Amino acid sequence: MFRHVVMFQWADGVDDAHIAAASAALSTMPDKVDTIRSYVHGRDAELSPANADYVVVADFDDADGFAVYRDHPDHVALVQQFIAGHTSLRLAVQHHVDGG
Amino acid sequence: MFRHVVMFQWADGVDDAHIAAASAALSTMPDKVDTIRSYVHGRDAELSPANADYVVVADFDDADGFAVYRDHPDHVALVQQFIAGHTSLRLAVQHHVDGG
Repeated sequence: MFRHVVMFQWADGVDDAHIAAASAALSTMPDKVDTIRSYVHGRDAELSPANADYVVVADFDDADGFAVYRDHPDHVALVQQFIAGHTSLRLAVQHHVDGG
Repeated sequence: MFRHVVMFQWADGVDDAHIAAASAALSTMPDKVDTIRSYVHGRDAELSPANADYVVVADFDDADGFAVYRDHPDHVALVQQFIAGHTSLRLAVQHHVDGG
């Protein structure tokens, strides 16, 4: 298995409606990108003030499956509409997961 | 379900032996903290130079289960030995996951 994890900090001025629309758009990704095996995302529970605001954990069979997602037109459009220009911080990790 | 995700950037001078020891110590957490339901961690695959270096995704039944982990003496000791003072960046998100 190959996992992609990404966190965001929303920029100042990003409101709840934007976050809800971003979340709804993210939820459509598994139906649009057939290399996605698992896709879990959510808004920080605010237990810690140092936390980022949002996280996505996406699993694929392999790094090629991740690349299909990363470059998929629907994903690129989502990033352009909801993420790029709306976040003050983005941090990601991809890694291989043993046993799958 | 309640998910905790944390990313690190290792500080300058942290070597492969330290990262391997940190990874081995992380792998012992599920045997030590009985509220952990799933625990997946790994080193960045270096597909993107902007990425962080390491990520941990830990799942619990609820936020209380996460708090048990966060405050568990064996977890606190691991953080002291391998993370605190060895990282230039730490970023986390906790969130509720629908359907579990």
